[in-house]
Amino acid sequence: MNFTEKQLSSELIYDGKILKLSVDKVELPDKTQSTRECVRHCGGAAVLLIKDEKVALVRQHRYLYGKDIYEIPAGKMEEGEDPKSAAERECEEETGYRAECGHFLDIYPSPGYTDEIIHIYLAQNAEFIGAHTDDGEFLSCLFVPLSEVVAMISRGEICDAKTVAAIYKYVAEKAEKPV
Amino acid sequence: MNFTEKQLSSELIYDGKILKLSVDKVELPDKTQSTRECVRHCGGAAVLLIKDEKVALVRQHRYLYGKDIYEIPAGKMEEGEDPKSAAERECEEETGYRAECGHFLDIYPSPGYTDEIIHIYLAQNAEFIGAHTDDGEFLSCLFVPLSEVVAMISRGEICDAKTVAAIYKYVAEKAEKPV
Repeated sequence: MNFTEKQLSSELIYDGKILKLSVDKVELPDKTQSTRECVRHCGGAAVLLIKDEKVALVRQHRYLYGKDIYEIPAGKMEEGEDPKSAAERECEEETGYRAECGHFLDIYPSPGYTDEIIHIYLAQNAEFIGAHTDDGEFLSCLFVPLSEVVAMISRGEICDAKTVAAIYKYVAEKAEKPV
Repeated sequence: MNFTEKQLSSELIYDGKILKLSVDKVELPDKTQSTRECVRHCGGAAVLLIKDEKVALVRQHRYLYGKDIYEIPAGKMEEGEDPKSAAERECEEETGYRAECGHFLDIYPSPGYTDEIIHIYLAQNAEFIGAHTDDGEFLSCLFVPLSEVVAMISRGEICDAKTVAAIYKYVAEKAEKPV
């Protein structure tokens, strides 16, 4: 079965600091036409940093939800930056820990309208060197026991997709390979 | 600590079929100003349908990634529709199964630029009644053993955030409460 959609045209609506929006005409497999509303994003990098069974969480205000939420440390990739470097940079900026990051999981946050890939890394051998957040970035970092993070997800207090996916993957794999 | 960002203005850039884009001016906690690129979306509903230890997956082309990907059955909520009804409707349309859906997990796919909430339900007592996809929706539904779905995620063959989060939550909770 071939479900491929062929691009016929692309109209750039907005070219911003963190995303571009275009409306594209596509040809469907049955030769009819449709439109796709396309958010293009340069990608994100996130870090699951676990130290003594405690998870590094960042609390920050998310304007679009009108509240503070908890997420693992993350940020968008700079132009030309590779995801591993971005993950290590964000980890250091937001938590104060320098760590060796190993690839853990990539996720597509909402494939219906965005091309973003969030690259998630597992931070190992983390060493505290002191936090230095960017100007205008208001957040606090805290370390929460893994079991409490799972309870917070269950209670709906943590909903961020990259955080939920990374934590449950970690827990699922730990359950499979008990030390 | 108060990290709240206060809306100063909102400029609507695009009002489409599945999303709206606005650029908002906000006041930060230190009284300086910044802009937020805001995708507003009416929300999605998804279903984790497991029948005889096999997971219902939908294969469909995702234009923004330029390839077919696997996801649990899902779709956007219609105007005024509640998430449970949307989940049950999408489940029936995409898999042909009518099921009683229980709330499982809500996720925020990418809180930096979208307000979307994806509501994930667990389908129970599913009964086959025959699939009837929407016109212009090209997809196939298949049932894959849970262990193979986990292997596909590990190999990077399944990246969709709602699917990864739901599967690992299911596996993590199953490991905790063995039958």
